[in-house]
Amino acid sequence: MKTNELKAEEAKAKTERVLAGAKVVYMATNGSHGHPNVRAMSTVKADGADVLWFVTDAGSSKVAELASDGKAVVYAEASRGGECRVWGSVDVLDDDASRKVVWRNELAEHFPGGASSPELRVLRFNVANGVYCSKAGKKGEFKN
Amino acid sequence: MKTNELKAEEAKAKTERVLAGAKVVYMATNGSHGHPNVRAMSTVKADGADVLWFVTDAGSSKVAELASDGKAVVYAEASRGGECRVWGSVDVLDDDASRKVVWRNELAEHFPGGASSPELRVLRFNVANGVYCSKAGKKGEFKN
Repeated sequence: MKTNELKAEEAKAKTERVLAGAKVVYMATNGSHGHPNVRAMSTVKADGADVLWFVTDAGSSKVAELASDGKAVVYAEASRGGECRVWGSVDVLDDDASRKVVWRNELAEHFPGGASSPELRVLRFNVANGVYCSKAGKKGEFKN
Repeated sequence: MKTNELKAEEAKAKTERVLAGAKVVYMATNGSHGHPNVRAMSTVKADGADVLWFVTDAGSSKVAELASDGKAVVYAEASRGGECRVWGSVDVLDDDASRKVVWRNELAEHFPGGASSPELRVLRFNVANGVYCSKAGKKGEFKN
């Protein structure tokens, strides 16, 4: 697999498409005892390849991990092939404005108290850089 | 989601089933600059929930990362629901015996030189502990 066959703007545009279409992504964090951690997550909202929004429970291990070290990476793949990874930092948010950004009625199953549920936390993943790789192995990197 | 609703032996048995059936798993490592890294991988061989075997290219970022810090985590999900995470350490191996363990003819597409291809590396993931969670949210932990 050759590096940087795609220009940065192409790589970012393709990453945006993968992130917009992926129902499930995989987020890794710096976990406890120096071990990484990883889990499947659903992206609630993707602002291009710049900011990804997630919702989680205040008691989840990722909230504890991200509060102590916000560095994270997200892997996503397109159903037609092509994959991307984006690195960045995650803010754990609790304010009303952030809750409004992420709230969808589908979330009521997990958060019956709605957008103001006390156990709801917003994760704002701020993308610093990323890499896209097509099914055929064409690769490109970008920085925000 | 309650913790440890499943006994350790049940959690390990279910983890074994998920790992044996998963075509793709997601392995996170301690990457560069203090950032975690993550990628999709195919397990070549799973010895229960004790050892997972992977094949990769000597030039891949994971080989560099794992040579510097072998701590890793693997996430896998069952097609019928249920998911697991296993933590452990990864050995990057290059010896003939390890190459024989992992070699399958399907690998010839990537490694035309066969099991002795100089660019082939074996990753032996030694599972230390894990957690299984059923589709219904029943959870259990185990240690090896």
